[in-house]
Amino acid sequence: MSNISSITRLEGSTGPVFRRDHQKADGRRLSLYSYAPHDGPVREELLRPETAPGELRRDPLRNSWAIYAPHRQSRTFLPAAAADPLAPYRPGAPTEIPFEDFELAVFENRFPSLAPSLEPGHLSDWASGAAIGQCEVVVFSKEQVGSLAALSQARRVLLIEALIDRYRCLHEAGFAYVMPFENRGEQVGVTLPHPHGQIYAFPSVPAPQLSAVSAFAAGYDLVGEHASWNGKFDVTADGDLTAFCPPFARFPYETWVMPRRPCAGPWAMDAGSVRSLARLLAEVPRRLDALFAQPMPYMMSFQAAPRGADANFQFTVQFFPVLRSAGRLKFLAGVEQFTGVFTVDVVPEDAAERLRAL
Amino acid sequence: MSNISSITRLEGSTGPVFRRDHQKADGRRLSLYSYAPHDGPVREELLRPETAPGELRRDPLRNSWAIYAPHRQSRTFLPAAAADPLAPYRPGAPTEIPFEDFELAVFENRFPSLAPSLEPGHLSDWASGAAIGQCEVVVFSKEQVGSLAALSQARRVLLIEALIDRYRCLHEAGFAYVMPFENRGEQVGVTLPHPHGQIYAFPSVPAPQLSAVSAFAAGYDLVGEHASWNGKFDVTADGDLTAFCPPFARFPYETWVMPRRPCAGPWAMDAGSVRSLARLLAEVPRRLDALFAQPMPYMMSFQAAPRGADANFQFTVQFFPVLRSAGRLKFLAGVEQFTGVFTVDVVPEDAAERLRAL
Repeated sequence: MSNISSITRLEGSTGPVFRRDHQKADGRRLSLYSYAPHDGPVREELLRPETAPGELRRDPLRNSWAIYAPHRQSRTFLPAAAADPLAPYRPGAPTEIPFEDFELAVFENRFPSLAPSLEPGHLSDWASGAAIGQCEVVVFSKEQVGSLAALSQARRVLLIEALIDRYRCLHEAGFAYVMPFENRGEQVGVTLPHPHGQIYAFPSVPAPQLSAVSAFAAGYDLVGEHASWNGKFDVTADGDLTAFCPPFARFPYETWVMPRRPCAGPWAMDAGSVRSLARLLAEVPRRLDALFAQPMPYMMSFQAAPRGADANFQFTVQFFPVLRSAGRLKFLAGVEQFTGVFTVDVVPEDAAERLRAL
Repeated sequence: MSNISSITRLEGSTGPVFRRDHQKADGRRLSLYSYAPHDGPVREELLRPETAPGELRRDPLRNSWAIYAPHRQSRTFLPAAAADPLAPYRPGAPTEIPFEDFELAVFENRFPSLAPSLEPGHLSDWASGAAIGQCEVVVFSKEQVGSLAALSQARRVLLIEALIDRYRCLHEAGFAYVMPFENRGEQVGVTLPHPHGQIYAFPSVPAPQLSAVSAFAAGYDLVGEHASWNGKFDVTADGDLTAFCPPFARFPYETWVMPRRPCAGPWAMDAGSVRSLARLLAEVPRRLDALFAQPMPYMMSFQAAPRGADANFQFTVQFFPVLRSAGRLKFLAGVEQFTGVFTVDVVPEDAAERLRAL
C-alpha cells in the first residue's frame, strides 16, 4: 500500500522542505520532513493503547497546574535496540514510523500528557479538568544512537525548518503556547535512548512564559543587556547569534543561544540565522560534553513568543545541564522545590569562562 | 574546658525542654536541645573553612531568585562513617558537635547558601546582591543511621519543640520566612547519611509562600475543603491531625500532614497536637517506605506562616516522595523546568488509597 497524496512543499528560509502527512491507523498524525519528497510505501505500525484522557488540576496555594496522566506509568522504558519504537519499519518489527526510511519524523505521542480536545471550544480553558493540548515526538534521524552534535548540519537545518512548521501548524490549531524541547540522558529521566525531542502545545500560556511576556512588554531588553555585558558571559558566537551563560542562571553551566537582534521566534529568522542556530545546536552540547569529558545530561528548549505575542518578545534556546561536576548531579531538593529559589554552586561568569576556553 | 553558663529552660507545650547555647571557635552558633540540662564538657570541633559570601541574583524573565554559593562545591560528600561530621566528639576525631553525648543539636551550616548579614539593616532587601539569611543543620540524634520513623516518640516531640524554638529565635532575629526541611536519600542529593534536617531563614518571603499567604487571605479554607472531601484523599489520622494526599499533588504519593482546625504554625499547637504530629512524622515515612518495600527518598518541609502572617494561614507538613514506582524516580525534566507544569503518573485519590491500605 502506498499513500503519498498529502505532500506539502514548505518554503523555508533556507530553501524548500517537504512534509508528508500520514494518519496512523489509531488516528494519530505523523509527518515526515525531508529535503526531497518522501514516496516510500506505508508499512505496519505500532498503535496507541487504549487510554483514558488526562486531567488538569490547579493548586490553589501555589496557583500552579499539574497534569495527571496515569496511563504514562506503562510507557516504554529503555527498550532493547531491536524494540526501538523510533526506528524505521523493519519486517516483523513494527515501530511508530511505518516507513523503511526517513530523514526526520514528527508524530503524536503514544503516551501523551495532554490530549487534543474533542470539543475545540475548550481549547482556552485551562481549568476545565480535561488535559487538553498536544504532545508530539520529534525523531531527529533514523539512527538509534547519536545526538544533536552528531547530526549533519543539513539535518539540523531541516530540524529547525520542521520546528518552524510545527509552530505554524500548532498556532493555527489554536494552541496558545508551543514548546519544543529535548531531554537528554537517563539522568533527566529519558526513557528512549534514540535521539529525539518533543513538542508540547498548551491551551494557555504557562506561568514562566507569561512572566517573560510581561517583562518584555514592560521594556526588558535582553539583547541590549547582553551587549552591555561586554562578552563577560559569552561562550561562543556564530554569525549574528550568541551563546552565553545568563548572569541569573539557575543551573550550573546553563547556556542560552540568542539572535543578537530583536527576534520573537525561529519563524522570524533569515537563512543565515537558521544556519547559525543549527551550528550552535551542535557547538553548545559539544562544549557541555567536553566540560567533564562525559555526555552532559541536559534539558533544552526553544523559548519563543506565545501565539500572537511576538511584539518585544526575545527568542532564546535554553540549555539546562544537570551535572555540577564530573559524576555529580545538581539535585533540585528541598529549597528549590518548596521555595522556587535555586542554589547554584557555579557563578555564571565562571561557567562562561570555562565553556569559552574549551 | 566546660562552659555550661548559657542554658535556657523552654516551656514547651508538652513540658520543659532545655537549650544549651555554644559559640563555636569560628563564630558559628550551636544549640543542644534536651529533656534534662546538658552539662558535658566542650571538646575540640570542626571549624568553618574560609568562604566568600554568596550572592543573590534575580531572573528578570521569571522574576525568580537564585543564590550563588560556589564555596558549596567543596562541601562534605558522603563521608566514611569514621568521618561523620554530625557524630558526637570522639578523641582524635573532631566533628561539628564538640560534646561526647547529645540528644538533638542545631548549628549553623559550615557551607551555607545564605549567610547572616553584617549589617542587619539589609535584612529585608532581597535584591541587595548579598545572599543574606541563615542556614542551620538539625541533627536528630547521635546515631549515624536511622530515620524520623526510627527515632523514639520522645525524640520526635523534642524535635518539634526545638523547631518551635528555632521559629521563635529566627523570627525574632528579623527573618521573614523560616523553613525547616529534610532531604532524605541520595536520590535527592543528600551528601551526609547521618539523619538530619535543615532550616533556611530567608530575609523575605519566597514566591510560593507569598502565593499561599494571598490564597489564605483571599479566603481559601484548606481545613474546610479537606472536610468536604469525605476522606477520599485521607491516608491516616492521629488525634486532631490528618495525613492526606492533596488533590492537586505534584509528586506521586505526595502527602501532607495538617491539624484539622485553623493553625498557623507548630507554635500554635497544644501538647496533644504536638504528640500527634510527632507520631505522624513517623507514620507517613513508614507508609512511604512500605509502598515499594524500599526506603522512600523524599523532601519534607514544615510550611508555616511567614513572620507576622499568622492570620488565616494554615500550617501543613508536606512530604514530596520522588519514586513513581519501585526503582523508578520521578524526574523533573523539560516540561516541569521550563513551564512549571508538573506531569504526574499517579492520581492523588489512588495514591491515598494505596497508602491507606498499607
